Amino acid sequence: MIARVVKALLFDVQGTATDFHSTVCDEARRISAGRHPGVDWPDVVRRWRAGYFAALEEARARHSGWVPVHSLYRRALDAVLDERGIEFPAAERDELTLAWRRLKPWPDVVPGLTRLRGEYTLATLSNADVSAVVEISKRAGLPWDAVFAAEMAGVFKPDPAIYRMAATYLGLSPDEIMMVASHKYDLRAAGALGFKTAFVARPLEFGADGEADVAYSDEFDVNASDFLDLAAQLGC
Amino acid sequence: MIARVVKALLFDVQGTATDFHSTVCDEARRISAGRHPGVDWPDVVRRWRAGYFAALEEARARHSGWVPVHSLYRRALDAVLDERGIEFPAAERDELTLAWRRLKPWPDVVPGLTRLRGEYTLATLSNADVSAVVEISKRAGLPWDAVFAAEMAGVFKPDPAIYRMAATYLGLSPDEIMMVASHKYDLRAAGALGFKTAFVARPLEFGADGEADVAYSDEFDVNASDFLDLAAQLGC
Repeated sequence: MIARVVKALLFDVQGTATDFHSTVCDEARRISAGRHPGVDWPDVVRRWRAGYFAALEEARARHSGWVPVHSLYRRALDAVLDERGIEFPAAERDELTLAWRRLKPWPDVVPGLTRLRGEYTLATLSNADVSAVVEISKRAGLPWDAVFAAEMAGVFKPDPAIYRMAATYLGLSPDEIMMVASHKYDLRAAGALGFKTAFVARPLEFGADGEADVAYSDEFDVNASDFLDLAAQLGC
Repeated sequence: MIARVVKALLFDVQGTATDFHSTVCDEARRISAGRHPGVDWPDVVRRWRAGYFAALEEARARHSGWVPVHSLYRRALDAVLDERGIEFPAAERDELTLAWRRLKPWPDVVPGLTRLRGEYTLATLSNADVSAVVEISKRAGLPWDAVFAAEMAGVFKPDPAIYRMAATYLGLSPDEIMMVASHKYDLRAAGALGFKTAFVARPLEFGADGEADVAYSDEFDVNASDFLDLAAQLGC
């Protein structure tokens, strides 16, 4: 049984453990305070996230040293708002960008992690800045044993260096560690290095009209509907 | 008031948060199981710790890349046991070295941290391996928001790089962070970089016959008798 081999679980944070879409949409509506009645905020937030993701990939491809993720979010927001012609003062753009440091967890996350932490070491493995992961976790009460992030490796997921860094820090071999994510590229990168993998379906990751890939696949060691289902499948 | 400026506290682990002396002495007695009635274990453990400390300093001076702390402990144990002519098989030396990954907290630590964590971000800043800090913290229920360790900086305290790393990861300036330790060299290194400092007296750090420096000093922002006193002085 896989649960007997695995000693630690690594979790993606944005999307897998937290509902960034609704958190950021809510913040946009609160900050705009009715001044932009025609704006489709879910669409803006999807484009913002896609712009950030493209900027991450670009940073990865450039190999030009570490870039704080917060600055990538801020620049990606400028691009989306300016492209859509949405008037938003700089101070409000700064405030809205902070929403990514205050993401709310999916409802199953705290109870699921609480069950899992009795049996496993739980750590994050996130592309967000360390300070963002700490802030999100503290606000939401996420009971990690350690916070690991791309900033500590100086490269972003799915670079192999970040998964290897986590194994070194945990003092475990890859097959004793399970990567947990709602994103298949993340799991495939970890799996290629010998890590166990758990796919968690997050159908609302990009909102009700988003197109999240939630198809279970035999290529992963576990497929779960949420963190409580993951805990049950891992014997907790 | 200092508590208004400080947003995060960094804690030394071995000695400041945990009672390594009695933990390791207890383990030595348990493993030797009465086979070495004449051995002064507190003295052996003090020499072991001193040997480890000298090895750390040597590693720092050599600048020769990262050395897992666990291996330094293991080698320092060989030196002490061989010097004292104490027969201890290799398997038992391995087992005894693991004691440093299972250190017990001082009795005020969990209640003190629990009070502090409502107001401050709490993280470790330890020379122990990341995996050792994670194991100690999980066993003892130490409620850190993040685990930072020398291994992440590739250098040991009191190298300035490790304190700067922690400030970067926290996303804070040095004057918003307080270093908490029972060792003055650690506080002086942090203070020289602009961090706030809190000295915690641990009179039993080296056992009843040890010579811990517990003298309060005006050079530190706070002098405290334990973590509960620290919490009280920081308004928690």
